[in-house]
Amino acid sequence: MAKSSTITSDVISSEKVEGTTVYNTAGEKLGSVDDLMIDKVSGQIRYAVLEFGGFLGMGTDRYPLPWNMLKYDTAKEGYVVPLDKDKLEKAPKYAETEVPEYTTDYGKRVYNYYGADW
Amino acid sequence: MAKSSTITSDVISSEKVEGTTVYNTAGEKLGSVDDLMIDKVSGQIRYAVLEFGGFLGMGTDRYPLPWNMLKYDTAKEGYVVPLDKDKLEKAPKYAETEVPEYTTDYGKRVYNYYGADW
Repeated sequence: MAKSSTITSDVISSEKVEGTTVYNTAGEKLGSVDDLMIDKVSGQIRYAVLEFGGFLGMGTDRYPLPWNMLKYDTAKEGYVVPLDKDKLEKAPKYAETEVPEYTTDYGKRVYNYYGADW
Repeated sequence: MAKSSTITSDVISSEKVEGTTVYNTAGEKLGSVDDLMIDKVSGQIRYAVLEFGGFLGMGTDRYPLPWNMLKYDTAKEGYVVPLDKDKLEKAPKYAETEVPEYTTDYGKRVYNYYGADW
């Protein structure tokens, strides 16, 4: 698959988003975007799945974040989320190989945890 | 990045969409989804970028398709678009390494070509 897609003023490539670093507002690096979860009906992105935690790249967990929480910072070339590490560590998460069903209940739990509008 | 994400009733992973085969309504295989183009402001997917053409995987082109044209067919395990090969061959396209700026003008040209609502 292409790794050469360009960021333009209007759209961004999903392949560019995947792998992009995520920081918090304190400037700490939290991890990177592993995947995006797309509403099948509307085509709206609902979650950026953050890869976070672990040690030397092993045993990282996946944290679904409401997409609207992520703001792109051109200077940092990464996303910034208003989230401290303590809050993130207690957030809904799963192992890479144990992706839950993103049911409405699960989605609401994630959105509620971060105080995001469902 | 995770390749283990599951398709659920509500959302689908961008990594699952990338690489998925695209057929037309006549059942011909047109190619596969190479990338997704996301509206930066709304988080809405605007285009699935189809990889099509070429010979033995060389020299394929990229064809941005309005996202709403793609319908997932669970039996085929792929997307179906109402599009014959002649129409596709004359459509807006670019080489993998020559991604255009997805300006409003470019987007309108693509949507108009397929008769999709902008």
